[in-house]
Amino acid sequence: MTKKIAVLPGDGIGPEIMDQAVKVLKALGENFEYEYADVGGVAYARHGHPLPEETLGLAKSADAVLFGAVGDFKYDTLERSLRPEQAILGLRKNLNLFANLRPAVCYPELVSASTLKPEVVSGLDLVIVRELTGDVYFGKPRGRRLSPDGAFKGAEEGFDTMRYSRPEIERIAHVGFRTAMQRKKHVTCVDKSNVLETSQLWREVVTEVSKSYPEVKLDYLYVDNAAMQLVRAPTSLDVVLTGNLFGDILSDEAAMLTGSIGMLASASLNEKGTGLFEPSHGSAPDIAGKNIANPIATVESAAMMLRYAFHMDEQADRIENAIKSVLAAGIRTGDIWSEGCRKVSCSEMGDAIRDAL
Amino acid sequence: MTKKIAVLPGDGIGPEIMDQAVKVLKALGENFEYEYADVGGVAYARHGHPLPEETLGLAKSADAVLFGAVGDFKYDTLERSLRPEQAILGLRKNLNLFANLRPAVCYPELVSASTLKPEVVSGLDLVIVRELTGDVYFGKPRGRRLSPDGAFKGAEEGFDTMRYSRPEIERIAHVGFRTAMQRKKHVTCVDKSNVLETSQLWREVVTEVSKSYPEVKLDYLYVDNAAMQLVRAPTSLDVVLTGNLFGDILSDEAAMLTGSIGMLASASLNEKGTGLFEPSHGSAPDIAGKNIANPIATVESAAMMLRYAFHMDEQADRIENAIKSVLAAGIRTGDIWSEGCRKVSCSEMGDAIRDAL
Ligand SMILES: CC(C)[C@H](C(=O)O)[C@@H](O)C(=O)O
Ligand SMILES: CC(C)[C@H](C(=O)O)[C@@H](O)C(=O)O
Repeated sequence: MTKKIAVLPGDGIGPEIMDQAVKVLKALGENFEYEYADVGGVAYARHGHPLPEETLGLAKSADAVLFGAVGDFKYDTLERSLRPEQAILGLRKNLNLFANLRPAVCYPELVSASTLKPEVVSGLDLVIVRELTGDVYFGKPRGRRLSPDGAFKGAEEGFDTMRYSRPEIERIAHVGFRTAMQRKKHVTCVDKSNVLETSQLWREVVTEVSKSYPEVKLDYLYVDNAAMQLVRAPTSLDVVLTGNLFGDILSDEAAMLTGSIGMLASASLNEKGTGLFEPSHGSAPDIAGKNIANPIATVESAAMMLRYAFHMDEQADRIENAIKSVLAAGIRTGDIWSEGCRKVSCSEMGDAIRDAL
Repeated sequence: MTKKIAVLPGDGIGPEIMDQAVKVLKALGENFEYEYADVGGVAYARHGHPLPEETLGLAKSADAVLFGAVGDFKYDTLERSLRPEQAILGLRKNLNLFANLRPAVCYPELVSASTLKPEVVSGLDLVIVRELTGDVYFGKPRGRRLSPDGAFKGAEEGFDTMRYSRPEIERIAHVGFRTAMQRKKHVTCVDKSNVLETSQLWREVVTEVSKSYPEVKLDYLYVDNAAMQLVRAPTSLDVVLTGNLFGDILSDEAAMLTGSIGMLASASLNEKGTGLFEPSHGSAPDIAGKNIANPIATVESAAMMLRYAFHMDEQADRIENAIKSVLAAGIRTGDIWSEGCRKVSCSEMGDAIRDAL
């Protein structure tokens, strides 16, 4: 059966890295159909909105979405509702992508690229399971008003609502524990339950859900402590289960620990297990169009798509093994290059992975 | 004129590290009066509340508060309103301690204690200026309810309110810029203004306040990016100006980068510039009573008290120079010990600093 893939390259280096992912996918010889659409700044420029109706419609009708990156300096002065990032938030909400999986893996060949000592990051292999459609990101009411009470009553105030309901926590907790079952069977629940009501319910519900997974070890960290443990002993973590806001912060911190954020992909899944797949890095407008970006994270996103959305584990493995063999052969884009390796362009890296399939 | 210092040792290692700070302060020969009171778990055990009226009264009447640490496993099962951390939140709110300064400094002798590579952390010297009495920590309404709307309407929900008013942002921004004027004249405003209304006002007001400090360079980072930059290039930062929640996370991350959180102190100040001074580390109940804790952060807190609350810069310098000379002499508690140094106990470290005054 044909699978329809919505391909949304976006801004900056988006198009060039996406080309490599599609090149590699095509080489698998599967029955995939690729439909392209504009998203982010380029969509605003062409259609007046970062997430045009047509793009959203395509994303909804596709079997999976492959997403490049969005954002560019030139859109920084737009009002927020028209800025490129709104496309990301809109896709998450409209496609109900509540489960975000962000692996942070330190590839053995790239240990030295980390700012952390090799002995601290070598073997690092954790995944942040971040809730993606709730929390203070989407909670209402929110806005501007005159402060209704407190010491500054009457002053102008900005406000947002942090909130999580029991079923929202339950479904992401199940994703977290199921993920752990396929890994080292260890979940760390991260919250701020010593201060926040939202976090207190979060911790209660995660604890309840854990009873269905007796083989999984569950422990807890306050988010401030989690930010420390990531620096102190990141290899002590396996699955980090957390809300939207804390997950945003910790997943970027974790990605940076590896020193090779150009290698890391993420999956954003809905109830049906399909969803959106994208590199963890941004659109890097400063190097766009130069054919020097690292496409590996996007190729890895394609592998995650095969694994999670299409249940094509064998083909996903083929891509991931190809990435590993290319790294083992000393082939590197500039961002991960080191003495003794061969420096290649973005498209040459795509070719190398395709050839290694 | 006599200065009254409220001494609140607290739980765990609190009493033993506090003894060293008081020992060093006394050796200065100044006209200080020390009044002790219970706080945290020990206060709950003796008086039924982690912040008894008497303790709060003393803190309010004193010229400054010297705080040890609170928390112990045995109080983890108490309901939240009686847990030791509530004493911290209660003191902040009741003493109006809106400005929290948390320096993260990497001492040259201790560079190797960091999990980061020496070239990444050497010379690290930043300060997180964290707002401490607003944000989602104290915003109302908050609690449990049946979800009033959305996809899970009617389900049990936990919720909190994130909010900042213009005058709250203004006063902490002034602290940030004034701090920068005494340092490298560089403020980094950290928020999540691409998503949150609260952050958007935060960024606007910080930008406005910056106009009064034309010599200070102002730049901006989203909080997720800030968590990355701390790992990638922490020495590129000088003053990080941020809200209560983001400051909680980033200050702990920054402290851990130095590898010697046992060395770092913090000041929590009110409008009058006086306030509460405490080590950045916790109560470490696992090593309490063994006389092996590192008292340097608490001694450094005393130095911060002299500098900020009492404007006794000369005496603060004496203490800080004493700490430096003790480190230079190779004297170390266990947590920062390395080959070739002399390992001392908590009280011996206190003696060594006193003797070096
Ligand atoms: C662009 C922004 C809205 C987004 C987020 O905060 O979730 C990004 O930082 C991410 O983590 O995917
Ligand atoms: C104990 C806790 C309430 C407190 C906070 O979150 O502010 C602590 O983490 C801190 O940073 O001082």
